[in-house]
Amino acid sequence: MAGNTFGKVLQVTTWGESHGPALGAVIDGCPPGISLSSEDIQADMDRRRPGKGGPAASPRKEPDIVEILSGTYEGVTTGTPISLVIYNKDAHSKSYDHLQNIFRPGHGDITYLKKYGIRDHRGGGRASARETAARVAAGAVARKILAGSGIKVVAYTIALGGIEAQARNLSDITQNALFCPDNAAAARMEERIIQVREQKDSLGGIVEILASGCPAGLGEPVFDKLDGELARALMSIGAVKGVEIGTGFKAAALTGSQNNDPITPAGFASNNSGGILAGISNGDDIIARVAVKPIPSIAMEQDTVDLDNKPVKIKVGGRHDISAIPRIIPVCEAMVCLTLADHLLRQKTIIHNP
Amino acid sequence: MAGNTFGKVLQVTTWGESHGPALGAVIDGCPPGISLSSEDIQADMDRRRPGKGGPAASPRKEPDIVEILSGTYEGVTTGTPISLVIYNKDAHSKSYDHLQNIFRPGHGDITYLKKYGIRDHRGGGRASARETAARVAAGAVARKILAGSGIKVVAYTIALGGIEAQARNLSDITQNALFCPDNAAAARMEERIIQVREQKDSLGGIVEILASGCPAGLGEPVFDKLDGELARALMSIGAVKGVEIGTGFKAAALTGSQNNDPITPAGFASNNSGGILAGISNGDDIIARVAVKPIPSIAMEQDTVDLDNKPVKIKVGGRHDISAIPRIIPVCEAMVCLTLADHLLRQKTIIHNP
Amino acid sequence: MAGNTFGKVLQVTTWGESHGPALGAVIDGCPPGISLSSEDIQADMDRRRPGKGGPAASPRKEPDIVEILSGTYEGVTTGTPISLVIYNKDAHSKSYDHLQNIFRPGHGDITYLKKYGIRDHRGGGRASARETAARVAAGAVARKILAGSGIKVVAYTIALGGIEAQARNLSDITQNALFCPDNAAAARMEERIIQVREQKDSLGGIVEILASGCPAGLGEPVFDKLDGELARALMSIGAVKGVEIGTGFKAAALTGSQNNDPITPAGFASNNSGGILAGISNGDDIIARVAVKPIPSIAMEQDTVDLDNKPVKIKVGGRHDISAIPRIIPVCEAMVCLTLADHLLRQKTIIHNP
Amino acid sequence: MAGNTFGKVLQVTTWGESHGPALGAVIDGCPPGISLSSEDIQADMDRRRPGKGGPAASPRKEPDIVEILSGTYEGVTTGTPISLVIYNKDAHSKSYDHLQNIFRPGHGDITYLKKYGIRDHRGGGRASARETAARVAAGAVARKILAGSGIKVVAYTIALGGIEAQARNLSDITQNALFCPDNAAAARMEERIIQVREQKDSLGGIVEILASGCPAGLGEPVFDKLDGELARALMSIGAVKGVEIGTGFKAAALTGSQNNDPITPAGFASNNSGGILAGISNGDDIIARVAVKPIPSIAMEQDTVDLDNKPVKIKVGGRHDISAIPRIIPVCEAMVCLTLADHLLRQKTIIHNP
Repeated sequence: MAGNTFGKVLQVTTWGESHGPALGAVIDGCPPGISLSSEDIQADMDRRRPGKGGPAASPRKEPDIVEILSGTYEGVTTGTPISLVIYNKDAHSKSYDHLQNIFRPGHGDITYLKKYGIRDHRGGGRASARETAARVAAGAVARKILAGSGIKVVAYTIALGGIEAQARNLSDITQNALFCPDNAAAARMEERIIQVREQKDSLGGIVEILASGCPAGLGEPVFDKLDGELARALMSIGAVKGVEIGTGFKAAALTGSQNNDPITPAGFASNNSGGILAGISNGDDIIARVAVKPIPSIAMEQDTVDLDNKPVKIKVGGRHDISAIPRIIPVCEAMVCLTLADHLLRQKTIIHNP
Repeated sequence: MAGNTFGKVLQVTTWGESHGPALGAVIDGCPPGISLSSEDIQADMDRRRPGKGGPAASPRKEPDIVEILSGTYEGVTTGTPISLVIYNKDAHSKSYDHLQNIFRPGHGDITYLKKYGIRDHRGGGRASARETAARVAAGAVARKILAGSGIKVVAYTIALGGIEAQARNLSDITQNALFCPDNAAAARMEERIIQVREQKDSLGGIVEILASGCPAGLGEPVFDKLDGELARALMSIGAVKGVEIGTGFKAAALTGSQNNDPITPAGFASNNSGGILAGISNGDDIIARVAVKPIPSIAMEQDTVDLDNKPVKIKVGGRHDISAIPRIIPVCEAMVCLTLADHLLRQKTIIHNP
Repeated sequence: MAGNTFGKVLQVTTWGESHGPALGAVIDGCPPGISLSSEDIQADMDRRRPGKGGPAASPRKEPDIVEILSGTYEGVTTGTPISLVIYNKDAHSKSYDHLQNIFRPGHGDITYLKKYGIRDHRGGGRASARETAARVAAGAVARKILAGSGIKVVAYTIALGGIEAQARNLSDITQNALFCPDNAAAARMEERIIQVREQKDSLGGIVEILASGCPAGLGEPVFDKLDGELARALMSIGAVKGVEIGTGFKAAALTGSQNNDPITPAGFASNNSGGILAGISNGDDIIARVAVKPIPSIAMEQDTVDLDNKPVKIKVGGRHDISAIPRIIPVCEAMVCLTLADHLLRQKTIIHNP
Repeated sequence: MAGNTFGKVLQVTTWGESHGPALGAVIDGCPPGISLSSEDIQADMDRRRPGKGGPAASPRKEPDIVEILSGTYEGVTTGTPISLVIYNKDAHSKSYDHLQNIFRPGHGDITYLKKYGIRDHRGGGRASARETAARVAAGAVARKILAGSGIKVVAYTIALGGIEAQARNLSDITQNALFCPDNAAAARMEERIIQVREQKDSLGGIVEILASGCPAGLGEPVFDKLDGELARALMSIGAVKGVEIGTGFKAAALTGSQNNDPITPAGFASNNSGGILAGISNGDDIIARVAVKPIPSIAMEQDTVDLDNKPVKIKVGGRHDISAIPRIIPVCEAMVCLTLADHLLRQKTIIHNP
């Protein structure tokens, strides 16, 4: 209830602070009999870890090696909880000393203090994006569960700093540092990043997530509809300020005859629904998009207050990305994998064997 | 886990089908000592009930009288579960006979059948928007809890059929049938509705929800962040396809210096965050917007298939609204009230008394 | 979280006060495709309802007719929540007027007031044993789920007022008013009841519950072990003060070689474990016993205090049973049915299909 | 839902196998502002760890040092999840090689395999009593929460191998290796242990748990009553086969006038209820007792089967205790501490501030 557990059948509890000794996740409810090793997890970790992301990247160097401390026997899951741990190696807590008494604009410094009456200011503590390392580790386990049912999840950048991808060439994604399905747009995005870094500012963008191979029937009306669950999962990522499914906000200006997907013997004739009808997957591709706000930590001078509510100027130095994109890409994938795997297992309880 | 319960401390379980004998909600976790009568609930019910909504409205006539069957004694809540029931009075099940073997495009007919292997086709069964009557009844109880802490929630139409409100005159909201804070825009929206009804089509729109008076500290990182919880709550409403907080999708094209809200001794200098930082309320107004898709039930002919996957033409007659707006307005308010009241109670467990 | 919901996949929420308009239950998570009618539920209700139970019975007359308000279509469950309601017909609230300011010894009057700061004193309000009517109604639905897997649950009286059954003749159970598997002991128990009624006192006893046909594999270590879940389910019945599984408290005085059940190719050679090993069913009969305290409402004069903490004498008249046995029998069965059905569905999520 | 999480507000998730690299617990929902160090936890750990327990003890040597990996800052809890880890140091997995294909009588070997289709046989895997090390670590945190409200929990041995304590001299508890409140009985219990070890057999017993200083009002009717929650908590300990509250099973043979606790201006005149009325604490001492079965691992020859269901003889060597008592004592305390702390926090959500 305190908010650090996600899912109902596949339940993931994460823990850890940016500058504490370690971060981790406990995964309860993973079915037995799935082969699982650290290597299965590392590929996703490597896409998220500090230093990745081309020109947008922080220089913090974390190897982000995941250790599996329980839940497997001879490389196979046993049905008992899987404990994953990632030790922090390169935290520079001293560089946060000057922030101990100041609230950074756009950050959770002020709200954590108001909520808990105490906060670990070092690197943002629990509110740091570093927390998502544990999500990605757990998401990799969910991805293995989904793979057994033929479900694939991929996310990619469709806008950054106001520059929009004009194409969805999925083969382009691995060909540029921003995981953009439009190499030409990616090149312009990279230029924009370099420009904004010089301005000591930061950028936001839009990520699209595509889940293919998902069977019809996932999602639990009326409150645990699949689109609602995806919205919560994605909005729980720090930088995300909006989520839409299928046509999303554009649907608000369409008529019913434009927005409805006609049904044919060969399937749906279009996919405005984003693969979800009445909160239940319909067998089509599931498509979601998230709005990612610009990184609030900027080197430009800003107005804020200190613990005594006195006005002060602040420049947030440290080792920060210019944009949460692209490192947020594997995090978005992880949250969608966790949501779908949870609902895949939940759907097992529905099936009636007469 | 089957999806019909919302909330963790204030837990609402809804039940009922569009054409069953009744719908209702059980509210567990409501604090004792709150005065509560049917009249407290009826005002919200009346804004949502069929026949309301001006030119957009269905002619189905439901008085939607709410009976309180438990949980109060001499007009005051006792801390035991509050059972609310609304008997259906005007269901015309026969008018759905021809839909028994056909899937309506844009509806949950096909996904309910694929998920459960059986469905109550009459009026959409559980997938009907009529289900939201129980949400509004429960939301009225949550609204009373919030009122005790000085929190107010109001929703209003800011776009319909592509026409956007140009103002936020909250006093206008009660002056037009569409609950729009811009009377002039409302007049044009109404014209658009009349036009589209003649075309046998339907319309979508955008609703904004404003919660004022909310204390800092609500929301439970990292997975039950307040914005994530609001996103799930709102996206769980059938017609909603997108949710954004504060600047939302527009933030994707801003820089950090544009999007960050400077902090001053008098409070935040702007409210791009929508009142939520790192998933925790910051004391400012909470602002969310939802994209409402056009009603899928249209009288225009559409392509679909029957239970044998044979192609058929369909015209959905019945008694349908042209737009989910404005009847969705009190539903949006209800979901935000339920979310905030739940988190208001959850926050009580955090406070440490040394 | 407020305590009125039981189960994780099969989730039952009950509501209602002894002297309110009605009581009921909402069952979420019942698989679709199960035939269900009021008649299926009524048989269990009739064993529990007031007026039953031979010489031990209260004269309150409640027909306890259960109405199904949602969740079925043409007599078959649809996977949506099942709402059950039982209207109260014979509440005599006036007869409780003199108890409004007095705490009855052995009752929840004092603890409800201390917990909630308010209480519905009429007939015990929510703390009344009448609350179990909703449990029995919901349990009947669980019993149907279990029947589909060949699982049967039966409870019976093995001690009452210090008189112990000397046999387990299950065929005797339906031949005496106390549901005792030893007709001779039952006759002596009835005599004891008559004697104690004259003394204006009441009696306790022991009920044994036997679940047969249960597959191996039910129960979720380490905290949701099947024996722990049964213990909670049974101890949540008002009058129950102890629960034991298999050999139970007697095992405390045995050695390992006496208590271990040898395993043979034909199965376990004995059943001291009560069908549960390490919290998981082993395929053998599941056996539990509960200690039922004497009814605290007695006509004999007792010492207590009023709301002002002044000493007063009290005689609890009203229409009370002399013993919770036998009416508690179907309640015990209901709680075991609900527990097993929940775990039967939970186990579906464990099975790995490679 | 997979069973490894305990509690609703104070949520503890444990993980780890007897012969895996480590065990641990994540505690979510601990209020901020509580001073907490490894030393606070170690005292409880030391009472439970292998090698303790006098003549009943296993020779396995585990230092059981607990590391705090998150959730505190400068020695004070921050409200974020507390991760505790205990590395295994002295697992002798090879000594279990001969058990890989054999089911030990009285153990979960057979049920784990039937449930999950796979098992880690080394030292019992997750079903090992070693799992309780994580419970004791988490329980020590709960104990600190309770201490802030003046609540104390102590457990002690009242029977072992059929020998019963004749007194409740709490000062005796720390004076004998069995934590028995009757030094004379403890001496005879120790003799009995030595005798039974020579017979290659094992012993059970009874533990009583006393919680003093508990305020009235804890417990959530109707399904999360405090006695029900305690019953589940205690029965979830591997060796426990029965739980009773207050007079417990003895109440079954009493009359109402004998069992009711009269209420006087100075409080309850007796405590047959064990401090709980209608599932809510009444302010009196809370008293529970658990039946502990004899350790199933005995050196005496027993009948069992192998994975092919062929009959085999088995002698369970290894390094086993003769009785789960006294090492189960801190585990019982931990489970009661966790239950009470969870309900202490839950009660905060009930209080209505008008």
